[in-house]
Amino acid sequence: MNKPMASPAVERGPHQITIRIYYEDTDFSGLVYHASYLRFMERGRSELLRGLGLHQRELLEGSNGTPFFFVVRAMDIDFKKPALMDDLLTIETRVAEVGGASVLLEQSVLREAELLVQAAVTVVCVENRKAKRLPANVRSRFLSS
Amino acid sequence: MNKPMASPAVERGPHQITIRIYYEDTDFSGLVYHASYLRFMERGRSELLRGLGLHQRELLEGSNGTPFFFVVRAMDIDFKKPALMDDLLTIETRVAEVGGASVLLEQSVLREAELLVQAAVTVVCVENRKAKRLPANVRSRFLSS
Amino acid sequence: MNKPMASPAVERGPHQITIRIYYEDTDFSGLVYHASYLRFMERGRSELLRGLGLHQRELLEGSNGTPFFFVVRAMDIDFKKPALMDDLLTIETRVAEVGGASVLLEQSVLREAELLVQAAVTVVCVENRKAKRLPANVRSRFLSS
Amino acid sequence: MNKPMASPAVERGPHQITIRIYYEDTDFSGLVYHASYLRFMERGRSELLRGLGLHQRELLEGSNGTPFFFVVRAMDIDFKKPALMDDLLTIETRVAEVGGASVLLEQSVLREAELLVQAAVTVVCVENRKAKRLPANVRSRFLSS
Repeated sequence: MNKPMASPAVERGPHQITIRIYYEDTDFSGLVYHASYLRFMERGRSELLRGLGLHQRELLEGSNGTPFFFVVRAMDIDFKKPALMDDLLTIETRVAEVGGASVLLEQSVLREAELLVQAAVTVVCVENRKAKRLPANVRSRFLSS
Repeated sequence: MNKPMASPAVERGPHQITIRIYYEDTDFSGLVYHASYLRFMERGRSELLRGLGLHQRELLEGSNGTPFFFVVRAMDIDFKKPALMDDLLTIETRVAEVGGASVLLEQSVLREAELLVQAAVTVVCVENRKAKRLPANVRSRFLSS
Repeated sequence: MNKPMASPAVERGPHQITIRIYYEDTDFSGLVYHASYLRFMERGRSELLRGLGLHQRELLEGSNGTPFFFVVRAMDIDFKKPALMDDLLTIETRVAEVGGASVLLEQSVLREAELLVQAAVTVVCVENRKAKRLPANVRSRFLSS
Repeated sequence: MNKPMASPAVERGPHQITIRIYYEDTDFSGLVYHASYLRFMERGRSELLRGLGLHQRELLEGSNGTPFFFVVRAMDIDFKKPALMDDLLTIETRVAEVGGASVLLEQSVLREAELLVQAAVTVVCVENRKAKRLPANVRSRFLSS
């Protein structure tokens, strides 16, 4: 009898959210202010975590044992094309690598098919103001994402 | 013969959007930063305008004739209860009064049934850096809202 | 022997700080984004507190006994004229009234002599998420301001 | 006859500004929100430009001929240590490389001697929404910085 094959890597796309550009996101050049994209990408990471069942307020309040939260350790960003007021953007987030205390995420900001901003973002798990190993249950959720 | 009655006031609710609270919206007190609610209410007004067919980038670019945009002239705000990280809020916006060059809006921020913030907001129509009468087609859309 | 007279009310001006307008403060209309003025006024209140020897991080960490902080309870704002990129503004803050648990402040944003924004701001003292009487030493500093 | 020697490279330090951390800069983790450092670094670049006689509003309004402004094209950032409410920080900015249409800046955020954030920032000169050669007088000012 045929043993079922190891499940083929399911080709899953990245996690996606859509966001609308408002006044608050723009600056006097008429374009979106560069730091606004970091806010959008943080929303994408927060929604990815929420999708994994990780609620950041609860984590900070200690729902998972010791209170912890994630901080951004490093970002490498390309601002390729500007977004504009009223644009509807897609934020894509992909878990690229799960380390001991850190997670590397690849994020993109798109306007339909057009790639506007691309970033590699390293976040680390912080407990009592120190980097610390990802709790096992958090780690496993990232690996499954 | 029965004269048709004046159309009874249709009981319409206020315009609503929902927004999620992210890191960017909070401050070190653990609560949402007070000025963040103004950003949320501006999103509510922008979506109300969009619903009326008024796209602010296009208006500023002159799609309606002379380029114009809205500015906030006055706000009267009560911050009743704080919102927190991860909260899902509803922003309600109601056109209370349409003046010659200005519109008075009543806005509320709610977490489910709980009223967190309430504001009266006066916006004016600006053209060439001067307050100016609402264009007739804009005015009529506000009146119909 | 002559008892010294109660010191006559010294006519002091309001507390002042100056701030520069940067990209982050503006929006695509070319003007300063309306919620930015709330950030500027909060800087003015923070510097007034600092001048009174009240450091907000320390207060939240409990340096004065029970941890507490101030929240904005209400604001009444007139946006009279817009500020622009590169402007140098003055934020004036005056303690108008010291209540049991609240303080009323009058704040102005000026570009040289020109009044751009004016606000009445009520802040309350919060401890364990509840409004609470101003600690006596905090109260006396406000009264002396 | 003695030819004057090439002027020896004057060992100048980087351009510096100091900034205070306010409520608006922090988030509910108790630390400074990561995107706030981009705002601080933009202030540093704006002040470096101002020191070179380049006023960005005037440049956008065409004071130098064709209207132009700078946009951030790429950033590589390390968030090494967090800043906190009430901190007084120094933003250092150094022109590392002046290209045809772009300038590479190295920026640091320090709390006294302690390095908190370090970034390499590429800005490009934009005219009519296209990258464009730095005007000669702008270029020479960067080279002299």
